Amino acid sequence: FSSATTIRATLFPGDGIGPEIAESVKQVFREADVPIEWEEHYVGDQIDPRTQSFLTWESLESVRRNGVGLKGPMATPIGKGHRSLNLTLRKELNLYANVRPCYSLPGYKTRYDDVNLITIRENTEGEYSGLEHQVVRGVVESLKIITRQASLRVAEYAFHYAKTHGRERVSAIHKANIMQKTDGLFLKCCREVAEKYPEIKYEEVVIDNCCMMLVKNPALFDVLVMPNLYGDIISDLCAGLIGGLGLTPSCNIGEGGIALAEAVHGSAPDIAGKNLANPTALLLSSVTMLRHLELHDKATRIQDAILNTIAEGKHRTADLGGSSSTSDFTKAICDHL
Amino acid sequence: FSSATTIRATLFPGDGIGPEIAESVKQVFREADVPIEWEEHYVGDQIDPRTQSFLTWESLESVRRNGVGLKGPMATPIGKGHRSLNLTLRKELNLYANVRPCYSLPGYKTRYDDVNLITIRENTEGEYSGLEHQVVRGVVESLKIITRQASLRVAEYAFHYAKTHGRERVSAIHKANIMQKTDGLFLKCCREVAEKYPEIKYEEVVIDNCCMMLVKNPALFDVLVMPNLYGDIISDLCAGLIGGLGLTPSCNIGEGGIALAEAVHGSAPDIAGKNLANPTALLLSSVTMLRHLELHDKATRIQDAILNTIAEGKHRTADLGGSSSTSDFTKAICDHL
Ligand SMILES: CC(C)[C@H](C(=O)O)[C@@H](O)C(=O)O
Ligand SMILES: CC(C)[C@H](C(=O)O)[C@@H](O)C(=O)O
Repeated sequence: FSSATTIRATLFPGDGIGPEIAESVKQVFREADVPIEWEEHYVGDQIDPRTQSFLTWESLESVRRNGVGLKGPMATPIGKGHRSLNLTLRKELNLYANVRPCYSLPGYKTRYDDVNLITIRENTEGEYSGLEHQVVRGVVESLKIITRQASLRVAEYAFHYAKTHGRERVSAIHKANIMQKTDGLFLKCCREVAEKYPEIKYEEVVIDNCCMMLVKNPALFDVLVMPNLYGDIISDLCAGLIGGLGLTPSCNIGEGGIALAEAVHGSAPDIAGKNLANPTALLLSSVTMLRHLELHDKATRIQDAILNTIAEGKHRTADLGGSSSTSDFTKAICDHL
Repeated sequence: FSSATTIRATLFPGDGIGPEIAESVKQVFREADVPIEWEEHYVGDQIDPRTQSFLTWESLESVRRNGVGLKGPMATPIGKGHRSLNLTLRKELNLYANVRPCYSLPGYKTRYDDVNLITIRENTEGEYSGLEHQVVRGVVESLKIITRQASLRVAEYAFHYAKTHGRERVSAIHKANIMQKTDGLFLKCCREVAEKYPEIKYEEVVIDNCCMMLVKNPALFDVLVMPNLYGDIISDLCAGLIGGLGLTPSCNIGEGGIALAEAVHGSAPDIAGKNLANPTALLLSSVTMLRHLELHDKATRIQDAILNTIAEGKHRTADLGGSSSTSDFTKAICDHL
């Protein structure tokens, strides 16, 4: 393909199993003739003063310039004086919404076979303000910040997502019966946006009740939107319903239309470099990136190949009860393309 | 039985279905010759200035005097200028630990058949401080307060509970990777207490990961202890695993050994007075009250009768897919005694 149609995207292979599963994505993209040229960036070995973290300024510039990226797991190096890599990315790139589609995988049995929902998490504020202090010895407090701006922005994203993805309902998750001002403001913003989308049903669900309903009957939910910490909790709960973080894609949306897709599982240092890792979460994340780029044909083709390979059951990695290597599984996907 | 051996306990039948399910408890206790004399208190119809809520001062005094109580659902009347009834009880009686045993009910099928855990929730502080304010227009904050005193107290309760109830492990649930000072202090207190209980295993689990593990494999957990909001979320999630709040007992522990057992489900006004309500949660809560009073023979006898009635499946209320009335179900339990 000509360079005129080539899209540049940033790739953070990440640590541990990251490079292996990133290799899997590169291979599948090549096989499917996806017109993407990767700009690879690795986590640095010293703190970049401009990011206050091991992430280099150049790598952030690359995402900003390209507008799209894909990220493997990044273990934050232990030590003082720098920020978590994930949090740095969210902050520096203003990744305000974390979107996680979560659906039961045909042929991979869990206790649930009817999950098909999207969690949309406010990703910049709330309990993640980092503002904490000791009042007196033995008494500490932390600040949860909710702003109208960030709440409207994520609510707008959620309703727009619902509308453009054929979804029927948005549920705002909250604890406004206790946090009337903070979660109350979040709800108020959701209601304002809901009015602009009369074709999308809107409901409000208290977080404790939401978790109970999710484990009893996840099919009750469609699109869920919520403040940061609730999103952290509920997106992992939902991942658990369908098999875990190794199977769920994630995509972060930033101001100016940036999309950074990512596998949210860990870097699994114990199996790193052994050709044992399951690349599914990163592959499905790369599919969300393709959809963001509106390369829907490629996205669907690749997604089908992944799901069919898993459904067929002949080539599964150890975490799914199989004995295939990362490269066998990847090859099987390529064969399904 | 003679009045010398009679124990006085406070009973709040509560609203909606409350009186019916409380009647069920009274009947079962009579049938089992439980030496308890109830002091019944209802929610008032105006705000008592001494409690700033519809709860009367006399009713709180009754619990303080008796040291034990049982509470049905209480719907907080809508309107301004008073506090939630549940929160008032927690505050006024200093109910610092909420204990919820959660186990699969033999014969009542859900997606899980291997749940057997206890959630212990700090019940007085954290995100429930009620301290919230607007910083500037469109920016609100709420304070989460964690104290050494309350954290040690609930941790101590959890380890003591584990030890005296033959439990092997205590898991502290937290988000200290984000809230290093607040949740960090909570963990520090748990670690201090853990050192005094070398026979009990201790582990720390991040809340998002905990929720994922709970839905994948709840049998991994034994006793869980956590700050207020996480306890609110996780105890409902766990209730969902075994069928919902209609089936799970709850008991609040206060300073000075007060125990207030309660059904945590709602007051179901739609079916109130129709002899349709399921009294199981209140009955199982009354069992936790009996255990607190060390009336273990009575507790076990009643618990077995409840569980056997449900297991047998002939008498189930509508919420469990049966067609029995509250009184039929209660009679069946009495017959099993
Ligand atoms: C690693 C941690 C800081 C992070 C979070 O809490 O947001 C993770 O749980 C996630 O969901 O991406
Ligand atoms: C009704 C509400 C205030 C309460 C809470 O959040 O604690 C309830 O959810 C509970 O768990 O008892």
